[in-house]
Amino acid sequence: MSSPSSAVPHLWAVVPAGGAGTRLWPLSRRHEPKFLRDLTGSGRSLLQATHDRLAPLVEDRFLVVTGAAHRDAVVGQLDGLDPAAVLAEPSPRDSMAAIGLAAALLEQRDPDAVMGSFAADHVITDEPGFRAAVTEAAEVARGDRLVTIGIEPTFASTAFGYLQVGPALPGSGGYQVEAFVEKPTEEVARGYLASGRYRWNAGMFVVRPTVLLDLLARWHPDFARDLRALAAGGTDGLQDRLARGWEALPRIALDHAVAEPAADEGVVATVPGSFGWDDVGDFDSLATLLPEPADGPRVIGDQALVTALGTTGLVVPAAGRVVAVVGLEDVVVVDTPDALLVTTRERAQEVKQVVARLVAQGRADLT
Amino acid sequence: MSSPSSAVPHLWAVVPAGGAGTRLWPLSRRHEPKFLRDLTGSGRSLLQATHDRLAPLVEDRFLVVTGAAHRDAVVGQLDGLDPAAVLAEPSPRDSMAAIGLAAALLEQRDPDAVMGSFAADHVITDEPGFRAAVTEAAEVARGDRLVTIGIEPTFASTAFGYLQVGPALPGSGGYQVEAFVEKPTEEVARGYLASGRYRWNAGMFVVRPTVLLDLLARWHPDFARDLRALAAGGTDGLQDRLARGWEALPRIALDHAVAEPAADEGVVATVPGSFGWDDVGDFDSLATLLPEPADGPRVIGDQALVTALGTTGLVVPAAGRVVAVVGLEDVVVVDTPDALLVTTRERAQEVKQVVARLVAQGRADLT
Repeated sequence: MSSPSSAVPHLWAVVPAGGAGTRLWPLSRRHEPKFLRDLTGSGRSLLQATHDRLAPLVEDRFLVVTGAAHRDAVVGQLDGLDPAAVLAEPSPRDSMAAIGLAAALLEQRDPDAVMGSFAADHVITDEPGFRAAVTEAAEVARGDRLVTIGIEPTFASTAFGYLQVGPALPGSGGYQVEAFVEKPTEEVARGYLASGRYRWNAGMFVVRPTVLLDLLARWHPDFARDLRALAAGGTDGLQDRLARGWEALPRIALDHAVAEPAADEGVVATVPGSFGWDDVGDFDSLATLLPEPADGPRVIGDQALVTALGTTGLVVPAAGRVVAVVGLEDVVVVDTPDALLVTTRERAQEVKQVVARLVAQGRADLT
Repeated sequence: MSSPSSAVPHLWAVVPAGGAGTRLWPLSRRHEPKFLRDLTGSGRSLLQATHDRLAPLVEDRFLVVTGAAHRDAVVGQLDGLDPAAVLAEPSPRDSMAAIGLAAALLEQRDPDAVMGSFAADHVITDEPGFRAAVTEAAEVARGDRLVTIGIEPTFASTAFGYLQVGPALPGSGGYQVEAFVEKPTEEVARGYLASGRYRWNAGMFVVRPTVLLDLLARWHPDFARDLRALAAGGTDGLQDRLARGWEALPRIALDHAVAEPAADEGVVATVPGSFGWDDVGDFDSLATLLPEPADGPRVIGDQALVTALGTTGLVVPAAGRVVAVVGLEDVVVVDTPDALLVTTRERAQEVKQVVARLVAQGRADLT
């Protein structure tokens, strides 16, 4: 087993950078989505933080797949990266197309490659722990398995899918994955936690590119063939080939296209991880990621702008204005130059309805 | 008895325009206090609305007394009024000095004058009812009594002083005032309401100027003499005389200087009124003044800027930005270009602590 945090030869990071993050409006917008934002006040966007935590493992072996509208912004934020490593999807076609295209390119470029896919908009608090798990997963993946990192659940979340974990695989740090299960009810989720046999599926797949594409070819042979054809020739002329061939690809998640049927066949493994992961789905989960002050609300940004009396929750003074909050528990106040959101941590999921309402009212410019 | 809403000969309106309204921050500021603001979204500031509701009774017989810092703004807002009718206090010296100065000027100018004092920052919903009460009070005041309009209490307020009402005065619509009582506890206030013998003291005094100054002279002879000396010569050269003599005047409320001792002597009368009065002390009372929508919060300003889901309370989108509020009951959201307030109707009184905190933090510019 490699030591944590040293580079893993031939390990490539594939970073799908997509998703609007509408439940994080007004911080996240269509034209400046969640992954381009510094949501936690760390000084780095979620995309940059994703790059930073992977670079010790993969050095410059990155492929980022993003929407055409965001390609320039991604290249601008990852200024040490070769712009050719940022692939632009002509339109969103879900995760199998994005990650499969990267796999097809890597299959040609590096026969010894192992790739790991990591969303650009997740947050991880224990980075060495994360890198140790990825390193372990890469070892297991070299045995031609599809490996997913199984996050230790810290509460009975109904917002994430789960893995059902089977017996340990002899001679490795991995375990058999019995099945993938969809987002459960809270009661079912509590049962999962109590059993100790379930882990969160964070979509972190580690796999040899050829293994991934060959698995895809078993259930979707045309899809695998088309991806390999698009990648023929590498990144030279790739955007022209995508302009012609991308729209015909199926819209399907990698989980459904490959991971679930592969689990049924017994070729999916998991490596456990417990490194403080969150997909920052809404302001409630964002608040949880921030240290809790002894007194007053959590603040992202300039604390001096916030005057709080008898208040807890989350305040984001992102418009440079003074924000005064009096007598509200678990409130969420997000102040931006053109839009203000006031809600509670409990109701934070409903922010996407505000975005839908604004679009219906002809104010899509604000979303 | 005069018919309501026709002019009352020799009736003068004296309008003290002062008070910072810190519990209405950030709408009310030191440099643009409550009375200069259109708090209810009527299209007229509280000062202008005060003028509008009195003009049918007094025509152009107004004297406004305000702080030197606000004189230009007051003159600007009351653009039909002779600027000489707006008196500038060099410094705040409480209500006896302000109203007494007006009385001393009117005593010289119009021997038949009856004056009524009406704060510039109160709201009245039934204007004909108000004018009928003032007309009645002027009749009673011609009998050389100090007349106060006694507002019928609509709830057990602990924020207002009360009048204890005695027997009817023969041959008029007035009643004897037995005593003025300070702001009570809630239990005491409930007793007042149950007795039917108490009314709110809104500081609306109607009186012949000479009667007021002669009453003042009984308990504060120097004060009455000094006011008459300042007024000698009328408004010509008045500001120069004020610059020399104003600071020496006592700081005392008219209630304490005259009304309370005069009640003990049996020379104070009251005329009842029930015309929807409020002093707009905080955002809770401001919300009460606005019609309650069938669904959603009350809005002052552009309703189209507010997107509310599962929310009641008060939203003021005064910065032109979209304000989205999700899942909060009885919330108060006041959005201005340089400061944002979020609180609840229940905690609205504590807004003055925010202002104190900002001053302590060196941000008096925002207050």
